[in-house]
Amino acid sequence: MSPTNRTYPSFRSVLAAHPLTRIAGAHSPLGGVIAEQVGFQAVWASSFEISAARCLPDASLLGMTEYLEAAANIQKALTVPVVADCDTGFGNSMNVAYMVAEYERAGITAVSIEDKIFPKMNSFAAADHSLLDVGDFAHKIETAKKAQSDDEFFVIARTEAMISGLGVDEALKRCNVYADAGADAVLVHSKKDTKDEVIAFLDAWEDRLPVVVVPTTYPDWHADEAHTAGVSAVIYANQGLRATITSLRNALGSIYETGHSAHLEDSIAGVKDVFALQRLDQWQEFTA
Amino acid sequence: MSPTNRTYPSFRSVLAAHPLTRIAGAHSPLGGVIAEQVGFQAVWASSFEISAARCLPDASLLGMTEYLEAAANIQKALTVPVVADCDTGFGNSMNVAYMVAEYERAGITAVSIEDKIFPKMNSFAAADHSLLDVGDFAHKIETAKKAQSDDEFFVIARTEAMISGLGVDEALKRCNVYADAGADAVLVHSKKDTKDEVIAFLDAWEDRLPVVVVPTTYPDWHADEAHTAGVSAVIYANQGLRATITSLRNALGSIYETGHSAHLEDSIAGVKDVFALQRLDQWQEFTA
Amino acid sequence: MSPTNRTYPSFRSVLAAHPLTRIAGAHSPLGGVIAEQVGFQAVWASSFEISAARCLPDASLLGMTEYLEAAANIQKALTVPVVADCDTGFGNSMNVAYMVAEYERAGITAVSIEDKIFPKMNSFAAADHSLLDVGDFAHKIETAKKAQSDDEFFVIARTEAMISGLGVDEALKRCNVYADAGADAVLVHSKKDTKDEVIAFLDAWEDRLPVVVVPTTYPDWHADEAHTAGVSAVIYANQGLRATITSLRNALGSIYETGHSAHLEDSIAGVKDVFALQRLDQWQEFTA
Amino acid sequence: MSPTNRTYPSFRSVLAAHPLTRIAGAHSPLGGVIAEQVGFQAVWASSFEISAARCLPDASLLGMTEYLEAAANIQKALTVPVVADCDTGFGNSMNVAYMVAEYERAGITAVSIEDKIFPKMNSFAAADHSLLDVGDFAHKIETAKKAQSDDEFFVIARTEAMISGLGVDEALKRCNVYADAGADAVLVHSKKDTKDEVIAFLDAWEDRLPVVVVPTTYPDWHADEAHTAGVSAVIYANQGLRATITSLRNALGSIYETGHSAHLEDSIAGVKDVFALQRLDQWQEFTA
Repeated sequence: MSPTNRTYPSFRSVLAAHPLTRIAGAHSPLGGVIAEQVGFQAVWASSFEISAARCLPDASLLGMTEYLEAAANIQKALTVPVVADCDTGFGNSMNVAYMVAEYERAGITAVSIEDKIFPKMNSFAAADHSLLDVGDFAHKIETAKKAQSDDEFFVIARTEAMISGLGVDEALKRCNVYADAGADAVLVHSKKDTKDEVIAFLDAWEDRLPVVVVPTTYPDWHADEAHTAGVSAVIYANQGLRATITSLRNALGSIYETGHSAHLEDSIAGVKDVFALQRLDQWQEFTA
Repeated sequence: MSPTNRTYPSFRSVLAAHPLTRIAGAHSPLGGVIAEQVGFQAVWASSFEISAARCLPDASLLGMTEYLEAAANIQKALTVPVVADCDTGFGNSMNVAYMVAEYERAGITAVSIEDKIFPKMNSFAAADHSLLDVGDFAHKIETAKKAQSDDEFFVIARTEAMISGLGVDEALKRCNVYADAGADAVLVHSKKDTKDEVIAFLDAWEDRLPVVVVPTTYPDWHADEAHTAGVSAVIYANQGLRATITSLRNALGSIYETGHSAHLEDSIAGVKDVFALQRLDQWQEFTA
Repeated sequence: MSPTNRTYPSFRSVLAAHPLTRIAGAHSPLGGVIAEQVGFQAVWASSFEISAARCLPDASLLGMTEYLEAAANIQKALTVPVVADCDTGFGNSMNVAYMVAEYERAGITAVSIEDKIFPKMNSFAAADHSLLDVGDFAHKIETAKKAQSDDEFFVIARTEAMISGLGVDEALKRCNVYADAGADAVLVHSKKDTKDEVIAFLDAWEDRLPVVVVPTTYPDWHADEAHTAGVSAVIYANQGLRATITSLRNALGSIYETGHSAHLEDSIAGVKDVFALQRLDQWQEFTA
Repeated sequence: MSPTNRTYPSFRSVLAAHPLTRIAGAHSPLGGVIAEQVGFQAVWASSFEISAARCLPDASLLGMTEYLEAAANIQKALTVPVVADCDTGFGNSMNVAYMVAEYERAGITAVSIEDKIFPKMNSFAAADHSLLDVGDFAHKIETAKKAQSDDEFFVIARTEAMISGLGVDEALKRCNVYADAGADAVLVHSKKDTKDEVIAFLDAWEDRLPVVVVPTTYPDWHADEAHTAGVSAVIYANQGLRATITSLRNALGSIYETGHSAHLEDSIAGVKDVFALQRLDQWQEFTA
């Protein structure tokens, strides 16, 4: 086996095996591997991270091709599963059917689609966040489940009802329809600076399906508390990207200012660390 | 104009305009933009960084397609020029002719090719670093110059003579042949832990063509000293990648260990910083 | 210069130089080169052909990435300009702004966008062909013109009013709004089996802007007649694809049935013809 | 299931199930589907066809990325297996290990690699066709077998000994070494205008492993005769491409000359035929 013939469990099996599944966002195989190395059970191929790495807005400018390529490349490097952030499913139900076929074929075992209108805008941006008609989105979920060829494939229905200011009741109503349509889990997203909306949702939801949360704006919500409140999986969606930005600013900034890089040597990974992440030794066995 | 119709000077003109051109390595538009923002005059689309971001060795597993795509995507986001690390030219002289056409068409104004044998292995890895016959590599340089369609296009001839243990004399001999073949600059690479080899080269070279250096293993060489010694451009080729690795380990590791991300909020970029790097405001003008 | 540093005039200049510009559809550089060789003045990078070559419906399953790659690869092989079929612009106005930047950068000098709703369905398919609000599409045209960086760039506004059964009057109303919005030409598409609708349009249009037609369902309309009726450019959009299908069925079918290929030798191109299309001699000069 | 979740047997199982496996070359899913429809048991993703469709020489200018993408896209559209033409394996043994991992992951069940030196030149072109050292190529075969993760994966060792003018004895010597190294089949290629060299090989080979042939220059060799002579699989590698070229010249040429396309209507596929190849009806079920 070559170093990229890696095997990994499905996200469905990982979710079943852990009381709480912890997931870190990434935009590259490098970020995914480090997330796995520090302990995360899955990696979120984040459209916010992937578009930001390209210096493009998270607004459906990049298409399925780019997001799939990023997710597939991350998955190749891992022994934990990727959960692919698939925005709106990239169009209508026919696009969703195509998406499921392509993601499955690329070895992705879980996707998330959201009930915004294509082209979407990032949830945290000041913009119109109109939702798709609930029936139309339910049809997308049904289509995704009908289009999959492997029972293991896992479809997360993400509602942006709270992002759109429609509140907990709309989120509940929608998530119930999506559950009826066959969703394997729901993701409820809030941009409040507390977890209150999400907790209100969880209280009323009564564990009908697994719930996934993304505590970007309420970062103090401890994973154990989230689990106790009824959460099955938590995604730390963009902290890796944000740490990367700061470290690049600091490292490159200080090289430019000081005129050399000697002072960084002790605080940055060594060339040998890079080789290890590249699995150089394993690859070199094939030239022996 | 849309935010990605960016204009930028050629690397040739940047080199002419600065006594010393300082260049930072990057593997993504994000890294390139931050390098530009902190002051660098150009960005090195590093094959070591690009392959490491994929968790693959820097050993010609990725091909021209991937390296060109990365370089082109970085250039799109910048107002400073990219210098593309093109390894061996991806094969023989015919490959070099194709490479030049493709890189020029993608808006790249400078490339570097090196006198190793395809497939190459990263210069710092323990491996055979046999060099290509000097005449064959000179033919690649001639071909690159003959294949270019724009006089501004800039070809850096990189010798790995010192990496291969052949010493300063071989480096000099080769660089003179490459200069005769039409190279626009030479890049001399050393993996000694001091700058001595490079300085010996510079002393004998007598400024025949601009010299580019990559002080990875002698990080204490100050840019001003390098300039005084005869260097025209210095590449900080991989410190950004290495800082990224450390920051990802720290940020993701601490989220996993503590169970939340609240403690990171003050030390990592905010979501609004990401939006700025994505040029969200500029893009949103087009939906008004 | 290498064989792929080809130079070509802009579509705008070609249109200006010919009383009637004749354009052939293609999905590959091979088809484009043959179209140029037999005399066509431009090549239509057809989304119907490109999706059909993938055995996928012409329904926005492939995205901008695939259509742009196909158009750019065709353009690289030609000395006549490509006109890129860009469907709806791949989303909203922001997508259009991104599209223009990407197509310009790839060397494409003309695009066509149509007033359907994303995701689109091929005009000849039995399906809902609802149109986008006229003001919203006019905004896309304005955005395209605002987003371009080169004055030569050419934007064709295609109305599907007649495809949608809304008739000539709606087509006229819409094309006038698109002209006001800055379109460089209009494309009027009809699926009637005669040219009558298009002629009615031309009679009332009074040559406000150049008109492009696609006589797929009225194939007997002679180019000279079209020109006399007021047409500036005619696209033979898919006959090459359809001829290819028939020839593949015949050639492969007869090999399978007869058990050999000897009988085909005189009626199919020779290996040397393929070499000529590959410009093998020109490329081999670079290895001399 | 969506129309692209197609299932297909491995090439190994197809070869076992047929006395003689007949294979047609293709460069696109369209060509592959037509080959399957007329009866072929497998499709050859030909590097000659794929490069010719791009109007580029078959000389390692396109890389693994492009050849893999073409092969994977063809396979997605089929219910018969693809055999991927992988040239030299795209570099050294490490490249072969990477290639096997990538092709397996993309669903390809059989590859062919040849004993030329990278970058290769098409076998029919006038050029140096030096062979790789036999031991080095045997190491590539060993590596490919070691790198595969699925026992079904099938590696064809192709010798160019006869193409290089080294004759039948060298071909036999090499194929025996490749068989020892673990090859699943051998492909012997000749550019003589008779089948004599290949028959001499078959007589001496004594069926040690399955033999694959490519009767491009001896097109009158009937499949039944080849089978009787000891051939297990025959590839009609480029006749589809060559028929396509002729049909494009004829169809586009006559449109240009006559000024219309009416006379072609009865001799080219209809738009509805294209829809059928696009599986439009099956895809439209997902929008119901």
